[in-house]
Order: sequence, then C-alpha cells, then structure tokens
Amino acid sequence: MKIVGFKETTVPISSNIQNAYINFSHMDVSLLALITDIKRDGKPVVGYGFNSNGRYAQSWLLKERFLPRLNQASPTEILNNEGSNFDPSKIWDILMMNEKPGGHGERSVAVGIIDMAIWDLVAKIEEKPLYQLLSERYNNGKYESKIFVYAAGGYYYPGKDLLQLENEIKRYLDLGFNVVKIKIGGVSLKKDLQRIEKVLSLLGKGQKLAVDANGRSDLKTAQTYAQMLSEFDLMWYEEAGDPLDFELQKELCQYYDGAMATGENLFSLQDARNLIRYAGLRPEKDFLQFDCALSYGLVEYLRILEMLKAHHWSLQRLIPHGGHQLSSHICAGLGLGGNEAYPEVFTPFGNFPDNYDVVDGHIRLTETPGIGFENISELYKLMQSLT
Amino acid sequence: MKIVGFKETTVPISSNIQNAYINFSHMDVSLLALITDIKRDGKPVVGYGFNSNGRYAQSWLLKERFLPRLNQASPTEILNNEGSNFDPSKIWDILMMNEKPGGHGERSVAVGIIDMAIWDLVAKIEEKPLYQLLSERYNNGKYESKIFVYAAGGYYYPGKDLLQLENEIKRYLDLGFNVVKIKIGGVSLKKDLQRIEKVLSLLGKGQKLAVDANGRSDLKTAQTYAQMLSEFDLMWYEEAGDPLDFELQKELCQYYDGAMATGENLFSLQDARNLIRYAGLRPEKDFLQFDCALSYGLVEYLRILEMLKAHHWSLQRLIPHGGHQLSSHICAGLGLGGNEAYPEVFTPFGNFPDNYDVVDGHIRLTETPGIGFENISELYKLMQSLT
Repeated sequence: MKIVGFKETTVPISSNIQNAYINFSHMDVSLLALITDIKRDGKPVVGYGFNSNGRYAQSWLLKERFLPRLNQASPTEILNNEGSNFDPSKIWDILMMNEKPGGHGERSVAVGIIDMAIWDLVAKIEEKPLYQLLSERYNNGKYESKIFVYAAGGYYYPGKDLLQLENEIKRYLDLGFNVVKIKIGGVSLKKDLQRIEKVLSLLGKGQKLAVDANGRSDLKTAQTYAQMLSEFDLMWYEEAGDPLDFELQKELCQYYDGAMATGENLFSLQDARNLIRYAGLRPEKDFLQFDCALSYGLVEYLRILEMLKAHHWSLQRLIPHGGHQLSSHICAGLGLGGNEAYPEVFTPFGNFPDNYDVVDGHIRLTETPGIGFENISELYKLMQSLT
Repeated sequence: MKIVGFKETTVPISSNIQNAYINFSHMDVSLLALITDIKRDGKPVVGYGFNSNGRYAQSWLLKERFLPRLNQASPTEILNNEGSNFDPSKIWDILMMNEKPGGHGERSVAVGIIDMAIWDLVAKIEEKPLYQLLSERYNNGKYESKIFVYAAGGYYYPGKDLLQLENEIKRYLDLGFNVVKIKIGGVSLKKDLQRIEKVLSLLGKGQKLAVDANGRSDLKTAQTYAQMLSEFDLMWYEEAGDPLDFELQKELCQYYDGAMATGENLFSLQDARNLIRYAGLRPEKDFLQFDCALSYGLVEYLRILEMLKAHHWSLQRLIPHGGHQLSSHICAGLGLGGNEAYPEVFTPFGNFPDNYDVVDGHIRLTETPGIGFENISELYKLMQSLT
C-alpha cells in the first residue's frame, strides 16, 4: 500500500469582497490529489485536500518541502502497524521532520492540505464516511449525522449598499440558515450600526446574527464597538483585535458580556493553548474557531481537542472557520458545535453535497466513504481535472 | 528612483550537523538582489538580502506573493516624502497588504529577506554604513563601531567525539572569541555533562560557555538540565522548551537562577510581546534573540525594540540569532548587546568582512556604505553571480 503520485494545482478564489483587514482580489487555494496503488471498482483510491480561504495557495511548500518527505518515507513510516491503512499521525511526524518549533504559518497550511487528503484516503480505505471513522476511533462510536451550520457573508465590497446586504441575508434565511454573520470594522461605526440593525430587522424567532471584525481593532475601538453591540442579542462578536493580542481579548471579555469568538488565525496547538491560558475566554459562552485546514490538519486538531478537554472546555464551543467538509465530519464525528458555511463565496470549496439542503440551520452528512467530495459536483469536477 | 528588477536564487547551506531538534541536511536559504535605476560609479545600486539558517529558502513567497506587490507599487507608495530614498516602513506596508493577522512563519522570512535588501539600498543611497544611518535616525547619532560577538557551534554530528568538540572550541578561542555556545539536549544528560565539562576546562578568565537546547525539552527534562547546569557559571541556558510555551519558560525562570535566552523562533511583534508579557523573563539577566531576518525584517524589529523599551528592557539584553551582518549593524547603531557568529557553519552567510578579526570577543564594522556585503568576498561572489 503506497502513494504512487500526487497532483497539485493553484485555484483562484478571488473576488471583490473585503473584510476589515484584507481584500480577496488575489486570493487562491491549493488543491491536492494523493493517488494510491489501492483499487476500488478498478480505479485507484485518491485522497483530496485543499486549504481554506484567507491564507493563499501553498504550492511551493507542498512540492518542494513536504511532499518529497512523504515520497521518501518507507511503508513502515507511514502505515499503521498492521499495514492495512495509512497512519495520519505517523505521516504527520514524517512531514514535520527537520522543522524547527515555532513559526506557525504557511507551512501549517501546507501540512493541513496534505493531512486532509490523508484522512480522505484513510476513510475511503475503510469504506466509511470520515465522521463514522472518527467517532469509532475517538468518540466511542457516537456521531451526529446532521450538524449546525451558519451562513458567513456580509462582506464589504465597492458600491454595496444596505439593500444589497438585505437581499443577501434574505437569501441565506431562505436557504434555511438560522444564524448569519456579517463583517464589521471596515466602515464607520455608524454605518456598521445601520448594517447590524438592518440585518436584525430581518431575523425572526430563533434566528441570530454574528459579527466579525477580522482582528482589525485596537482595544479602544473594540470597546467602542462592544458598547454598541451590547445593545443587541448577538450570536457572537468575532476577532475584535489582533488574534495574538491575548491581553486585548482578556480586557474585552471583562468588558463585554455577550459571547465572543476567535481562533481562526491561530495555527498550532501551542498558539491555541496560549489563547486558552491567557485570553480570559469564558468556557460557558465563548466560541473557538481553529481551522484544521490552516493549522497542520486534523492530527494537530486532535491534540488541540485534548488540550481543551484538559482545560474543561466542552467541544460544543468549537465552530471552526473555513466552511469545508473536513470540519463538517469532525463536527459530526467528535461532537463539535457546528461549522461555518459560505453560501455565496469561495465556491466550490465550501459547497455542500449536491441536493443536500440546510433545514432549520442544520445540514445532513452523506454516507459516502471518505470526506465525500465526490458528492459536490462542482468541486469534484475540479478535483477530477487534476488526475 | 525605482527598483527596476530583482534576481533571486536558493542556496544550499546543508551540512551533517544537527541540534536537539532538527538536522541541517536539506537546509537552504534564499538570496535576493534588488536592482535600482540609481547609478554609483556608472553601476546600478543593488541591495542584497537573505534569510538566516533554520527556516529554509522562501523562493515562491518572494516571487509569487511579495515581490509582485513591490513591483506594482507606485513611487509615492515606496519612497520617502522627498522622493530621495526608499522608505522601508512604507514598503513594509505594501508587502503586507492583504495579509491577514496572525500566522507568523515563512512569510515573515520572505518579508525579512526583502527588508534586508531594502535597508542595504537605503544606506547605500545615503552613502553611509547602515549602523551610522540607524544611529542617526533612531539613536541620537550614537553608535559603536565594534560589537560583541560569540561563537555558535558545538553541534552534534555522527561520529563526533569529545576530542573533536575540544578542537572545535579551541579554534574559536584561537580566533579571538570569549564566549562559545554548544548544543545540548540531543544526547543523554550524562553525555551532555561531559561535553560541558570538557568545554569549561578549556576556558580561561573572562571566557564563558552558553548552552542551547533548541526547544526540545518538556518541563521535567528542562528542570533536570537546569539542575545540572546550575552547578556552572554559564553565559546562558537557551531555548529549553517550545518557544511558545511561555508557562514552561516562566516555571524555569523561577527554578533556575542562571541567565536564560530565547526568542529566535518568535517571528513577530505580537509573539515577542507575548514572551515579554507571559514568560517571566528577568530583564536584569536574561537574553532575547529575535532575528529580524526571520521576522519581517528591521521594520518589525524596530517595533519590537519600542515594545521592549515600554516594558523597561535594556536593548543590551538583545543578542540576535542568525549571525548575519544586518544584525551587526543594528547592534552597532542601536546599542544591542551583541551578535551571534558561526565561525564554521552556514558559510558564507555568516562570514565577517575579509581581514576583520575578532579581538577580545569583539569585531569592528567596516565603513562601506550599506550593510557592507561587498567586503565579504565569498558572499559577494555569490551575490555578484546573481546579477
């Protein structure tokens, strides 16, 4: 059993949207296929991986640094003890060989891409949907076949006005979402207030709004926003300040009584642990958004989950960034709180399986072996064009 | 005044050495030349940059993400207000456009490489050695034309025995170094103790040994080592545990009375600030080793210096990792405590100017405009082969 080849390409996901920190005019992602010598129905089993939006493609790191290590590894270094499947944890050690500690960015994305493809392979080889495999290995066989999802959107873009925002949010609600998220911090507080009030006016019973500042604000601005936001009953107030400014987060948690969310820009166990140690987050109300596809993959994410349990956090407080199906499987198999979804941007990487609809804010998972990218026709077409 | 082109290449600095964490068998660095339309003696003024060892070349990030932003910038976006020179800070903002916060690795190296080349250009255009320019801009004109340097070596490699270590250290002392550094944590404590005792037996009055665990140890191991090390009068005990495990560092600082050193694997203002906030380091005795060539360059390093001053740290506590001449200029111009040097590895990137000798643990800087790579013939030959 071995990986006999890989294909890799960079796919633009550029658009004219922007958050308070960056625009996405040059955004792209890496798409990877790992091809094995195992056959199912006469065809080689292929695992697919890609990274989430916001951190660019990692073609060079994949091809020049990490995939060569995988290629050069012996079978005992990458297979389980029985030799019956790939071992994601052993593979992780191979990938991270001769990497110094610290400096968790970019390479964490490259490793995340490979890790996603490996888990897709592992579950395909066991002929199970990944959530089932994860639940058997790490959660006493318990899983949910449908999960909470929320609609992330409400980006800024040139010329976008309140009417366009209103129409966008209506579309999300019509699709079946109960929680929607919009950006804040990229225009004046007054204009953001209008945007928030507009969206809130559209929501019915059981429906909620989350707001996301994308790490833009200093403490004073974040507090000013917090004061404004505390008038409303929000799902959460996300990434108020720099993701590594734990002091700012701590002060805000003391100042703002509503739920807060952060973590999408922390890419390692060590950084996640520092957030938990220092940022004063409240396990009874706040949300953690670590995204395995940017953070050394599920192998590292499992370590983060262990760390969180040791700090008495419920995994229900985890709703990852990124809107990809790997997080949906982790959520279903290990009991996270939900997953992000991007109904109108970053397609097809965030698409749901074809003909699967959001019902009352939840989506079902398919029973296809692996992560099930094969059920997302637009995405799978892209994947097939690789191999 | 503009940058009319760039040349970039990857240079292997591989060797069979290893520290407690990685081996350097595939290590490489990026070398960059930025070519301007300014002429001196009929030739274009060229700025050179490269990264320090340990974090690999960054060819793709340079060519695909960061240099295109520089190329596409207008003159007002990259020149000072008078239009008489490049503005490193404005250029930094251009480079970091559309980069999300957090995730400080790899890209911090790529930006560091460009930043080094920019400062080389800026000082060449002002026809001053960089340390003088820095002292005028940021240190009331004060500078030292010679700086403390120490010899980093004592790596592990296959077959290396105590006699070889002894000979290596003798060579450093013969070269004029007063402080030498060796690796620990890669073999048993007993063997490390033998190595330490061997080196200490070679040292005379005013000479000291530093030891470096390269982030390998957990708390218990680090404490065991600390107990052993506390028998000796060492220069410092470096990177005992994971660079982001500030709790471990804090516990060790309470446990170990000798000087400690860390920071080479923290690559941003935010990470450096967290170290100062949380790691319990002692401003009266510990050392900080942030390396601008891995950490978004001197523009970010200047922010780190401001942060340290605000936390009442003397800049004398800074002795950067990396052994490159940019840190020597920063040290001379801004009053840092010294610089690392690698007399026998990573050549020619850590070489001193030709015919400049270490005297009593110090080295003089040349008066050549810029960083003065032109005085290091082996390195400059490599640089010239680029353009």
